Amino acid sequence: MNAEIISVGTELLLGNIVNTDARDLSITLSELGINVYWQTVVGDNPERLRAALAVARSRAGLIITTGGLGPTCDDLTKQTVAETFGAQLYFDERAARELRAFFRVDNGGTMPENNLQQCYLPVGCTPFYNTCGTAPGCGFTAADGTVVMLLPGPPKELNAMLQNGGLAFLRTVSGAPIFSHNIMTFGMGESAIESCLRDEMNALTNPTLAPYAREGDVRLRVTAKAETQAKADARMAPVIALVREKLGGIIYGIDTPSLEATVLSLLLERGETFAAAESCTGGLIAKRMTDLPGASAVFRGGVTVYTNDAKMRLLGVDEETLRTQTAVSRAVAVQLAERVREKLDADYGIGVTGVAGPDTDGVHPVGTVFVSLSSRAGTAVRALTLSSRSDRSRIRTLSANHAFDMLRRGILGLPLELAEV
Amino acid sequence: MNAEIISVGTELLLGNIVNTDARDLSITLSELGINVYWQTVVGDNPERLRAALAVARSRAGLIITTGGLGPTCDDLTKQTVAETFGAQLYFDERAARELRAFFRVDNGGTMPENNLQQCYLPVGCTPFYNTCGTAPGCGFTAADGTVVMLLPGPPKELNAMLQNGGLAFLRTVSGAPIFSHNIMTFGMGESAIESCLRDEMNALTNPTLAPYAREGDVRLRVTAKAETQAKADARMAPVIALVREKLGGIIYGIDTPSLEATVLSLLLERGETFAAAESCTGGLIAKRMTDLPGASAVFRGGVTVYTNDAKMRLLGVDEETLRTQTAVSRAVAVQLAERVREKLDADYGIGVTGVAGPDTDGVHPVGTVFVSLSSRAGTAVRALTLSSRSDRSRIRTLSANHAFDMLRRGILGLPLELAEV
Repeated sequence: MNAEIISVGTELLLGNIVNTDARDLSITLSELGINVYWQTVVGDNPERLRAALAVARSRAGLIITTGGLGPTCDDLTKQTVAETFGAQLYFDERAARELRAFFRVDNGGTMPENNLQQCYLPVGCTPFYNTCGTAPGCGFTAADGTVVMLLPGPPKELNAMLQNGGLAFLRTVSGAPIFSHNIMTFGMGESAIESCLRDEMNALTNPTLAPYAREGDVRLRVTAKAETQAKADARMAPVIALVREKLGGIIYGIDTPSLEATVLSLLLERGETFAAAESCTGGLIAKRMTDLPGASAVFRGGVTVYTNDAKMRLLGVDEETLRTQTAVSRAVAVQLAERVREKLDADYGIGVTGVAGPDTDGVHPVGTVFVSLSSRAGTAVRALTLSSRSDRSRIRTLSANHAFDMLRRGILGLPLELAEV
Repeated sequence: MNAEIISVGTELLLGNIVNTDARDLSITLSELGINVYWQTVVGDNPERLRAALAVARSRAGLIITTGGLGPTCDDLTKQTVAETFGAQLYFDERAARELRAFFRVDNGGTMPENNLQQCYLPVGCTPFYNTCGTAPGCGFTAADGTVVMLLPGPPKELNAMLQNGGLAFLRTVSGAPIFSHNIMTFGMGESAIESCLRDEMNALTNPTLAPYAREGDVRLRVTAKAETQAKADARMAPVIALVREKLGGIIYGIDTPSLEATVLSLLLERGETFAAAESCTGGLIAKRMTDLPGASAVFRGGVTVYTNDAKMRLLGVDEETLRTQTAVSRAVAVQLAERVREKLDADYGIGVTGVAGPDTDGVHPVGTVFVSLSSRAGTAVRALTLSSRSDRSRIRTLSANHAFDMLRRGILGLPLELAEV
């Protein structure tokens, strides 16, 4: 089965946003073994959307639209698709109930009337209710046999909807199921990992093995074709074992969403806690940890000590050390980690100080960062020289990754320094 | 003149990369007043690329391709375009000289022979030499009048080529330019804003006015066609003034990137500072502020006091208040704001406490949040009841938005409570 993705939104044609929806859907479809041959972007214009649908219908068995399902008069995708495929619309009562709950109508909230247009769905469709927005999506098979899915444009809504109904719908329409696992690594670049595993990657056919770089870490995706999850897992297990043997401690999890999620579960298992004192990361470590439900059981708290004054006031960092070594130094990183650990009575303390740019501190180049981990075993520092080609955002992300990686290694008793960074 | 962008690359259809080229080109074309009605993505497949070119030619006067100009056997864009438009290719000597320089052939470097296929260009074209890669691009008018541009896929090469020849070529083919401004608002939903401005939006043709929702705020884009920026601004000024009159204090800026950027510049202008004590936002406010270069001049620092213990240890919040009122209370929000302001000697203190979910605190529903602002004028609290349908991430984002909005209003002396949230 071949698919076409039609993204509807004038904001895409104006360049206001980048089309991550098409990327996310393409990854999902590829994992399910569905070939995407076309991605099309069209504005909030019914005539051109009609033309796009006519072209797509002539060349794809599965058409997935994103965007144009909302409450405003710009949102015309559903009506245009229904018209093109001769589908009737019905008023979905559950969608209406969920909308009223969203707007808390029973508790005195008001819902602008135009929201109700979102509740009309094609007769016979599988509705996908929206768990983080207002517009429901759906999937249906049209009279001509074309399978059509309508999904919302906001990336968070789209991805949540794929998890809640969308993927299940796609599995029913795809051919032989494909299953995959992601081996998550931190500490080696994509090309180094590829060199290390090249023979395996070339030799394998089912499962396959391929690396994907994300910001600051690399995932290795193992993908198997098989009739059931169990049979696929049986094929994948020896490959995962082999990769574990070759890459060792840089693997922080299988199918784990992030380094911080790994840290959270390790600490929960052990009943241990940490605290963070952040200078250049400015709250990013705290933010990433508290993005995760359950963080309060392991995260004692943090301080963002962006200025020297705050470092002294909140943690009592030595004025003398700040003056003689500057704020961006091994000694200050150590004091941050040790004092926040002590102040908040945590098992582990993290301290991060560095130059995220774009300006330097007048002493160190942009990308100089010291990450420190303090525990009952002592205090260690990782001194980073992140590429001068990295921007502020990337330097902050990588610094936070290193902090979580040191914490992970500290908890597990692994060496804290990386062979290759 | 209407344009279609055709991005060529199987890696886009697999979701390996996101199509930033289409976004960057769309911004450029929009600024030049060229309407982009279509973006198409097709793989490295000559047959489907031929089909895409045939469709594009039937509906666009300007076709811009990205990708497929390199030296490998996958790179078929130029040959396929030449064939479609009946263009002859010639060997461009300057392109060959630049390639030899790129590979330092005169200094002992070796150039794989297949690189030379990149030097063939359509007869009569304007070549765009590549300043940071190997493949040259070009622009030409085909026999049927279609204007065609061929650009490389790597974003860095594409953007450099636009600056070095591409933009100049586009200016010669474009009509009257388009200019736009974004009116940034916080505090009213998209559909409420649309209801409020529906008559204006329907009546206006040049400029036009349209709302776009982002997470937690809404932008209104005003777009005018005119020969110059000054003439466009003259058309847009009365519309912006009218929107200002209707929406008032919910407008936080024109063309401003975010609420926190507005807060940063307001504080910089006044030489004032703030500090933040975050419970449910867990560092997000600090993180968003320190995302911005220059934040250290206005942000004294912050604490993430995710637990009662941390609230007491770092800020001395009353144990009695925590016990009787619980951590999620107006009283605790006030203490957080006042004590972090005092502790870090800032002009403004922000305190946020609430239930971000997914679990409740056993007392309050998910989405109950208190945001407090303390200043020399006193302390105020905004009590929020965010939709139970909002997820943890959205509740945190909205809470941080409210904190920045209260701070903005506090600085400007506007009322701190919102009429509609």
